[in-house]
Amino acid sequence: MISVVILGAGNVATHLYKAFKISKAVKVIQWYNRDLEKLKSFKNDVDATDDISNLKLADLYIISVTDDAISKISKKLPFENRLVVHTSGTVNIHDLDKKNRRGVFYPLQTFSKSVDTDFKNVPVCLETLDKNDFKLLKELADSISNKVKKVNSDQRAALHLGAVFVNNFTNQLYRLAHEITESTGAEFDMLKPLILETALKVQQNSPFRAQTGPALRNDKSTIKAHLKRLEKEHHKDVYKMLTQSIKDTHGK
Amino acid sequence: MISVVILGAGNVATHLYKAFKISKAVKVIQWYNRDLEKLKSFKNDVDATDDISNLKLADLYIISVTDDAISKISKKLPFENRLVVHTSGTVNIHDLDKKNRRGVFYPLQTFSKSVDTDFKNVPVCLETLDKNDFKLLKELADSISNKVKKVNSDQRAALHLGAVFVNNFTNQLYRLAHEITESTGAEFDMLKPLILETALKVQQNSPFRAQTGPALRNDKSTIKAHLKRLEKEHHKDVYKMLTQSIKDTHGK
Repeated sequence: MISVVILGAGNVATHLYKAFKISKAVKVIQWYNRDLEKLKSFKNDVDATDDISNLKLADLYIISVTDDAISKISKKLPFENRLVVHTSGTVNIHDLDKKNRRGVFYPLQTFSKSVDTDFKNVPVCLETLDKNDFKLLKELADSISNKVKKVNSDQRAALHLGAVFVNNFTNQLYRLAHEITESTGAEFDMLKPLILETALKVQQNSPFRAQTGPALRNDKSTIKAHLKRLEKEHHKDVYKMLTQSIKDTHGK
Repeated sequence: MISVVILGAGNVATHLYKAFKISKAVKVIQWYNRDLEKLKSFKNDVDATDDISNLKLADLYIISVTDDAISKISKKLPFENRLVVHTSGTVNIHDLDKKNRRGVFYPLQTFSKSVDTDFKNVPVCLETLDKNDFKLLKELADSISNKVKKVNSDQRAALHLGAVFVNNFTNQLYRLAHEITESTGAEFDMLKPLILETALKVQQNSPFRAQTGPALRNDKSTIKAHLKRLEKEHHKDVYKMLTQSIKDTHGK
């Protein structure tokens, strides 16, 4: 049984807590947060504390706080030579205070407080400075996810960047489509099956192979008609840039 | 039983044929294509012809060919005053030759020849010039899809444009993420659960509400670090434009 202390009470920390709770290989023996109020719905399940000087002895400490606070909180830990990991996609492993053994446990998914996530399908990116620590961290990750990978800091940063493209930026394209359809009274809902199909198609095919549409075909008359129809300059700009991007990718 | 003649043998025509085949309300009595070779795998199921002067009498003729060819083929039809529809997202209803009664039957989905599509979940956009024709077209569409809507030409063009954003452009963002991750040896596959989750989230929430990430938070240090990390100018340009787009949408 791997004993764990979680530090922080954001979305990632909460989803991790829930995933560990149903794992037989892991026991969360303590949950620290500056503000105890945020842990109140779990206070009957776990030892909750707001006193960082009073952390229990555990196999692993998981710091799951905002990027800016990771380094600071790692400095405040009142012990040495224990395994401490953070859960950020961008923070370097060396930003953790070197008085402890260091690692990263980065779950690559979007979490919301209100929606339960099946952690089995969440890719987890692991990094440690020490080989033995990696073994422990992998055992922990394998107990909650089927998609555990060794990923160095450079690769992790690239994945985090990729995540911004496929999550935040893609979602913004949905938003622009919402603006475009609603301006005519058409229902954005009509696009939802296509949104889902687009995401499903790329599960089996590379995005390169999955591409279709006027830019791929270099169908100039449709592209021209689209640009004429778009009313907002910003919509035109995004249309032009991504049309050019598709053409460049496919050598048109 | 509604009798139908299909003209054309592309992806949409083929998926429509298959959907009609399992519908009890519709009978495809003839399938026309310039090149009979493309219909050969169906020749035992349906009367296939390459002679447009020899089309059978039917309740409805569905022209499912490339946008450019729709007007031409509608002119070549050897009859008058019958109901003729096309399946395009962009072609105006008035581009069909006026010697016949005119309509549009636009299925809003991406089709590939090799993948079967459940037509029940495909939104179908209908338009006719005549009320009675609408009734027949709706009966036909309802027999294969649960998502049938009356959509005028302006709304249809907006939906088609929106489809380019949520399908072609979104797929291109997947491609850029592929380039970014592979450049470090990280696996694009790690992003696939996030891609799917992003598409699922917007089935229940508006894209406005579903947004997260550094641009939404106006997290300048992460944005700066991301821009520094991106190697290709084009990746930087897309990053900047969509980050600004998110900021503008959310008033940052």
